Amino acid sequence: MAPAYKLTYFNGRGLAETSRYLLKYGGIDFEDVRVEHADWPQLKDKTPFGQLPVLEHNGKKAGQSIAVARYLGKLVKLAGKDDWENLEIDAVVDTINDLRLKIMVIRFEKDEEKKKAMTETALKETVPYYLTRLEAIVQKNKGYLALGKLTWADLYFVSMSPTFDTFTGEDVFAKYPNLKALRDKVDALPAIKKWIEERPKSEF
Amino acid sequence: MAPAYKLTYFNGRGLAETSRYLLKYGGIDFEDVRVEHADWPQLKDKTPFGQLPVLEHNGKKAGQSIAVARYLGKLVKLAGKDDWENLEIDAVVDTINDLRLKIMVIRFEKDEEKKKAMTETALKETVPYYLTRLEAIVQKNKGYLALGKLTWADLYFVSMSPTFDTFTGEDVFAKYPNLKALRDKVDALPAIKKWIEERPKSEF
Repeated sequence: MAPAYKLTYFNGRGLAETSRYLLKYGGIDFEDVRVEHADWPQLKDKTPFGQLPVLEHNGKKAGQSIAVARYLGKLVKLAGKDDWENLEIDAVVDTINDLRLKIMVIRFEKDEEKKKAMTETALKETVPYYLTRLEAIVQKNKGYLALGKLTWADLYFVSMSPTFDTFTGEDVFAKYPNLKALRDKVDALPAIKKWIEERPKSEF
Repeated sequence: MAPAYKLTYFNGRGLAETSRYLLKYGGIDFEDVRVEHADWPQLKDKTPFGQLPVLEHNGKKAGQSIAVARYLGKLVKLAGKDDWENLEIDAVVDTINDLRLKIMVIRFEKDEEKKKAMTETALKETVPYYLTRLEAIVQKNKGYLALGKLTWADLYFVSMSPTFDTFTGEDVFAKYPNLKALRDKVDALPAIKKWIEERPKSEF
């Protein structure tokens, strides 16, 4: 029987890796479809808004990486016990996504001089601003980003964390011991550890 | 007795208006706190990530406008009946937010020449790309953005729609009759109509 879930993305970690972490964490069988860039133009118009990832289940499709991760977080019991708890998870996820977007804008900047200035500001101000506050949150939340226990916010953060490392050109977590401990803890979860070992190698 | 909910934002519609629409729609009493820009520096450090809006309830605080709107959407029964339905709502909301962010980047661009080129691309390509697809979704969903019925995605879209109008410098909805009908329908809901009449006037 075909797996109940099909996750389609490019051949990389990128915006699909959180969902792969969640599916692996939950032991849920899924089809990990990876589209080569040469095949993308033909597929693009068949996606809801010309974007990947797309999750398929029971003949239905849905896009938007964070929305999909939230759905899967509930599926694998890494969500809150009530609506306010889910708000706390969602808020920290959106905050981390804000930081990610601020970094991505710099990556896509083509003017080299402007890019350099933006990078300097990000490294001196933006990244420390966010990571210092996230570090404090993890410290007071028993080592997790929300609710004092493992939630899909942690899997989101850890699966996305290479973005911050790559951008800063160093192990950014060296300065944030609680965030580093969280990353190491999530990546050491048996199902995640196995996935990291067996997943296709890719640059991003 | 003080209202159970307190929503703090600047003195404008902006990122708080969706939550105000939802609270008004649900007939939920709330404190509509509006911070003047002169008072913001003192308050900034008391917010989770130096940002507004912040929702307070039962002595707890949470930020991130879309996360807060999702919570309130559930509170006022404008959410889905299961996790997949909520995924459908979340995906269309995040898609509209993508469009909003693409427009905001242009607003904040300081290089006039670059801003002009970005605006032209947005008006010719980006905005029509999104709105054409949203128009088709509303057409096939019985006049709504998701699930064939009124959800908080509709209140999100309509409360944010002035962003698109202001940006294009015209009634952008004139070209999209289904989106226009949706906007008119939401703004005609008795509680929303009353709110629009009585809310403080502001530019944004």
